[in-house]
Amino acid sequence: MIYAEILAGGSGTRMGNTDRPKQFLMLGNKPILVHTIEAFLLNPRIDRILVVVPNVWLDYSKDIMNKYNVYTDRVHLVVGGSTRNETIMNGCRYIESQWGITDEDIIVTHDSVRPFITQRIINDNIDACLKYGAVDTVIPAVDTIVESTNNETITNIPVRKYYYQGQTPQSFGIAQLTSLYNALTEEEKDILTDACKIFTMKGHPVHLVMGEGYNIKITAMYDLKLANAILEGHLHD
Amino acid sequence: MIYAEILAGGSGTRMGNTDRPKQFLMLGNKPILVHTIEAFLLNPRIDRILVVVPNVWLDYSKDIMNKYNVYTDRVHLVVGGSTRNETIMNGCRYIESQWGITDEDIIVTHDSVRPFITQRIINDNIDACLKYGAVDTVIPAVDTIVESTNNETITNIPVRKYYYQGQTPQSFGIAQLTSLYNALTEEEKDILTDACKIFTMKGHPVHLVMGEGYNIKITAMYDLKLANAILEGHLHD
Repeated sequence: MIYAEILAGGSGTRMGNTDRPKQFLMLGNKPILVHTIEAFLLNPRIDRILVVVPNVWLDYSKDIMNKYNVYTDRVHLVVGGSTRNETIMNGCRYIESQWGITDEDIIVTHDSVRPFITQRIINDNIDACLKYGAVDTVIPAVDTIVESTNNETITNIPVRKYYYQGQTPQSFGIAQLTSLYNALTEEEKDILTDACKIFTMKGHPVHLVMGEGYNIKITAMYDLKLANAILEGHLHD
Repeated sequence: MIYAEILAGGSGTRMGNTDRPKQFLMLGNKPILVHTIEAFLLNPRIDRILVVVPNVWLDYSKDIMNKYNVYTDRVHLVVGGSTRNETIMNGCRYIESQWGITDEDIIVTHDSVRPFITQRIINDNIDACLKYGAVDTVIPAVDTIVESTNNETITNIPVRKYYYQGQTPQSFGIAQLTSLYNALTEEEKDILTDACKIFTMKGHPVHLVMGEGYNIKITAMYDLKLANAILEGHLHD
């Protein structure tokens, strides 16, 4: 089975004075979250879609998803966890409890606030994950990367061609992700805040899939304005 | 003396089918280059502004700058070099030949295709460069930074809080920059394509000044569309 997991567990504290987490803010004529769910609904290879939201926003999410007609038979609402990885794992636990997990099952995890994901990116994630078991979506670093471990002076300017900016989806074999996560100590869980890092730190290769510059993450008001400009077609070539 | 050097030496091959280097493309009602020159003209602390352009675009640049009234007494046109650093150094050689160089003289070098530079960023560059002698303008890395030395799998996911995205200006004591650059071997010149890297590799600290997310570099058509959206005020908070 091929699962999508849309991560809407965040409370969006960076957006400033809004009354709702950012995934619920309007982008064009519908909430950001609805755009993102639609992208996965449009892909026939995705068997089931989990939408993982904070407990206090469960009823609200259900209302929104019903209102915009994306709460279909393929879509399941799940309560998120206290961290990004705990939120991902709550989805895996839900899958295990509802349908069980086989070694062939994969999960395509995606930020709910990256609504411009394309079918090409989803398909590349599925293909690479079925083949390799762990996938990260990235774009080549646009700017020079500068390292400063003291926040005052440059400590290194690494070779840019080796650096990428991480996006999502991140896709994994569910059985292996679960096994690796459950073997982590509490200290490792604190450090390995990126699910791909769990694989790399444990010696499992994570393959790269190319994203798109416009597959942006909406975390601040600036991003929301940019997203509206992208949506209006100003920015697509 | 405080010099600004606007780097317009590039031929802009990434912009696709345009007949002019990207610094000459229109952004709103004037060329990108004119926006950038205006930002430095507006800062009274800048004594002289060098605009460094490819030899074949010298007459065209003069016409444009006259047409948009930015070819003032403070502005000097200089021919660029074959690389970014050679272009920067051509400006320093021009200064030396025209006015001489003292240990107090600094140069604020800036991409001509970053027209959204602010007075705050220019002033922070001047202040930090007068104090420390070498400055880079950066913003904290927005996305997770992913390292892949083989272009296929992740080789490292470094700690994001230590990483920044480089912008410009980069500002230097002119005498020290010249001295360091002239001591480089040809092989070092091939590797040290970023002027700040010359300082860091030779053990001279480069201090950080914070840029802005919207201080973007216009290198592709997508960026130009984004720049027009920024200009229209969609993206400023």
